[in-house]
Amino acid sequence: MAQAQKITPRAQDFSEWYNDVIMQAELADYSPVRGCMVIRPPGYQLWELMQRALDDMFKATGHENAYFPLFIPQSFLAKEAEHVEGFAKEVALVTHTRLKATGKTGADAIIVDPDSKLEEPLVVRPTSETIIYAMFAKWIQSYRDLPLLLNQWCNVVRWELRTRMFLRTTEFLWQEGHTAHATETEAETEARKMLGVYRKFQEEWMAMPVITGVKTESEKFAGALRTFAVEALMQDNKALQAGTSHNLGQNFAKAFNVQYQTQSGGLEHVWNTSWGVSTRMIGGLIMTHSDDNGFVCPPRLAPVQVVIVPIWKSAEEQQLVLQTATRVRDELAKAGMRVKLDAREELKPGAKYFEWEAKGVPLRLEIGPRDVAAGQVMAARRTGGKAPTKLEDIGARAVAALQDVQNGLLHAARERRETRSIRGVTKAQFLEFMNGGGGFAYGGFCGSGACEAEVKHATAATIRVLPDPEFRSPEAPRTCMWCGKPSVAEAVWAQAY
Amino acid sequence: MAQAQKITPRAQDFSEWYNDVIMQAELADYSPVRGCMVIRPPGYQLWELMQRALDDMFKATGHENAYFPLFIPQSFLAKEAEHVEGFAKEVALVTHTRLKATGKTGADAIIVDPDSKLEEPLVVRPTSETIIYAMFAKWIQSYRDLPLLLNQWCNVVRWELRTRMFLRTTEFLWQEGHTAHATETEAETEARKMLGVYRKFQEEWMAMPVITGVKTESEKFAGALRTFAVEALMQDNKALQAGTSHNLGQNFAKAFNVQYQTQSGGLEHVWNTSWGVSTRMIGGLIMTHSDDNGFVCPPRLAPVQVVIVPIWKSAEEQQLVLQTATRVRDELAKAGMRVKLDAREELKPGAKYFEWEAKGVPLRLEIGPRDVAAGQVMAARRTGGKAPTKLEDIGARAVAALQDVQNGLLHAARERRETRSIRGVTKAQFLEFMNGGGGFAYGGFCGSGACEAEVKHATAATIRVLPDPEFRSPEAPRTCMWCGKPSVAEAVWAQAY
Repeated sequence: MAQAQKITPRAQDFSEWYNDVIMQAELADYSPVRGCMVIRPPGYQLWELMQRALDDMFKATGHENAYFPLFIPQSFLAKEAEHVEGFAKEVALVTHTRLKATGKTGADAIIVDPDSKLEEPLVVRPTSETIIYAMFAKWIQSYRDLPLLLNQWCNVVRWELRTRMFLRTTEFLWQEGHTAHATETEAETEARKMLGVYRKFQEEWMAMPVITGVKTESEKFAGALRTFAVEALMQDNKALQAGTSHNLGQNFAKAFNVQYQTQSGGLEHVWNTSWGVSTRMIGGLIMTHSDDNGFVCPPRLAPVQVVIVPIWKSAEEQQLVLQTATRVRDELAKAGMRVKLDAREELKPGAKYFEWEAKGVPLRLEIGPRDVAAGQVMAARRTGGKAPTKLEDIGARAVAALQDVQNGLLHAARERRETRSIRGVTKAQFLEFMNGGGGFAYGGFCGSGACEAEVKHATAATIRVLPDPEFRSPEAPRTCMWCGKPSVAEAVWAQAY
Repeated sequence: MAQAQKITPRAQDFSEWYNDVIMQAELADYSPVRGCMVIRPPGYQLWELMQRALDDMFKATGHENAYFPLFIPQSFLAKEAEHVEGFAKEVALVTHTRLKATGKTGADAIIVDPDSKLEEPLVVRPTSETIIYAMFAKWIQSYRDLPLLLNQWCNVVRWELRTRMFLRTTEFLWQEGHTAHATETEAETEARKMLGVYRKFQEEWMAMPVITGVKTESEKFAGALRTFAVEALMQDNKALQAGTSHNLGQNFAKAFNVQYQTQSGGLEHVWNTSWGVSTRMIGGLIMTHSDDNGFVCPPRLAPVQVVIVPIWKSAEEQQLVLQTATRVRDELAKAGMRVKLDAREELKPGAKYFEWEAKGVPLRLEIGPRDVAAGQVMAARRTGGKAPTKLEDIGARAVAALQDVQNGLLHAARERRETRSIRGVTKAQFLEFMNGGGGFAYGGFCGSGACEAEVKHATAATIRVLPDPEFRSPEAPRTCMWCGKPSVAEAVWAQAY
């Protein structure tokens, strides 16, 4: 049950605020399993709405869903050298398959049966490149089988030392797209296209503006040729990597022998891409929009978009306002909105306002006897502002209000990001910026991993992306903002989640 | 790519036929992971359609979705004595969390890092009662928090020795409902209600008739008070348990201390139910309807409901028929059907027929130049029958044809089941029936587990359910069909998957 507890203000402790928002909105809860969380119904509804929207976009771009095994033989993971190095230190390993009773009592009553040891340990998938490309080798014979465009919705496990709800959990839910193409160009186009899908989804649905670009060598995916990413800036001025798309080149095709016969009869390795977004996006959505009163959810993804709170003093008034409230609810539902009429008798209107605010509902309609008489409702937006609204055409009015809130959230988030972006930084400005709260710092980069490491050591900032043309500064930087050597590309630095 | 291969006839080898149907329809494939399969796009689309229909029914009955951890601490599983005994021999156990390089080459290059051993092993969930009720203990305080009605869609793992695609795999996909109630009556009502939902779904969507009833003590779920089941009869006259619903009593509530304050201020343990259906249903659907030409899919769940095959000889004819075929496709799509126009140039119509038949598409519309001239198409049903159909109102005509196929499949399956059901059996009849192909044998049961064990040993048949009143024979049996002692209930025996 929702307990009315105080939410720690952002200014006081951003991290505590984040946890408080989640707990108050009942999006998730801590579990007794180390690093794993429980996603509660409001959080899971949000995830289902995200899935539905993304899945439609994946299908519109020609992808089909499939499902591959949770377990990966250890030897498969080891086949691509960089890949296994990237994941070896954070995998859950299944080694036995039976428990047995010892006849003792207490903690020793049941133990792992040593006789059930597997010949080869199984890795709980941290990502599925290896098992999926092993299947691709079976399915792909000729150029006619290409492109192969698959996606999988599933759970994955990475044994992380420090976990935070939604942002970094041992187990998380995600989708991973995996494709095979005849040429490098096609793979590059695909990886770029899906990055665009992520950006579109995050901006249009999550109202979370992102910048796009390519990762440096030191930040790319283990086994990829190139990694592209969408990066957002949170309210505490830290960056969140909200999705990645990889051109895997022929690395996995060579490791798993995925070859196809070309039109001219030759034999070539395919070019793969993979791309994924996860429940981490829910953490990003929370940290982009929510405030000291709790969760703020963009209307397009809100499990409840409109809540109607009737106000009465007498039984007579109750009947009157409930009649109107019910009619409004039905009209809104008919107009396609996810609407809830909160007619609970044991709670006062103020307590309901408090609860639905914490749960992030974008629009609240209050209806009292005087409103009924005046043919209006009071419409209160989660993002601020309360005004009487005519009952006439209430469906269209609510739709417009929600659209307005959606646009407003994206606009505000973009404004905030731009306020916390600095361009053409010198080393001195960079240090001042990172010590003064941080954000996106645009500056020249010499291309050296050593320089990146130094910056990280000094400021905890990393290169989020080498931005795409659209996000680059009007004037290309000439020197590396850190070492002063010639710049090979503009880079965006930030401290990150 | 679909390879045109011969499907083993059912009469020759039912088990090989089953695998052939799956491979030809590309529903699934073998994976390199022991006992695990890959669900390919057509199979996964079928699962998504099943999920959508069931999820709507769960939500209509007041349930919400949530997500709980994949891993269960070993000590949690052990808390309910019968439960751990039921699952101890078939669990995947995570014991370590890192791999490390040894510097050697070959198979020893990467090994499990012994320093990463977990203090307490984690069980990959075989079912989630224990982890979920541990959370219920945190969320439930008062009678106002009841009933709590949750559902989870997820993967589970049971280390089975003999596996078969969809029917029994090490990892499978399922939903598990978990609820908490104030009274035993409410829990019993809930368990019964969800059994009804399963029956409705399996009959109305899958066109798979089922009988319902309660399991005997020896067949009930490990930790349950009572287990109810839906049981279907396959074409080889073996039964398939297609779903179960459990009244768990207060067993788990006591093990996990899930208590609530009653209205009068007392403290009581809650009553739990759990219920689940899985990807096993896809195996049941295949074995109920498919034939020697391959997969037969009931229209309501068919990923492709109608395929249009244009027929031409010249380029001129091609243009003509494609124009009409496209119009038909658009009309059918507009009428809400999942329709595909197969305009591939490299395949002859006959090859296309063969392929779409193997893939189970319920309705095929063939359009040649003469059809266009006559204002008609040839409509061929997957279940047999081919006739010209007017182009006028083709949408409504196709909808009616699909409905007809759906009804016909349910009717035929029910007829077949009744043909292979025998009532009021004596021991001699029972033995003859089980040796002569088997099916559902209805007869008296003394209630003794020893009798059940004897029957199983002699015939491999088990009691599928003690049937609900609707399925019982007009005259209640007086004696146990096996031992001759007084009957306590009518039972339905069958050999089963």
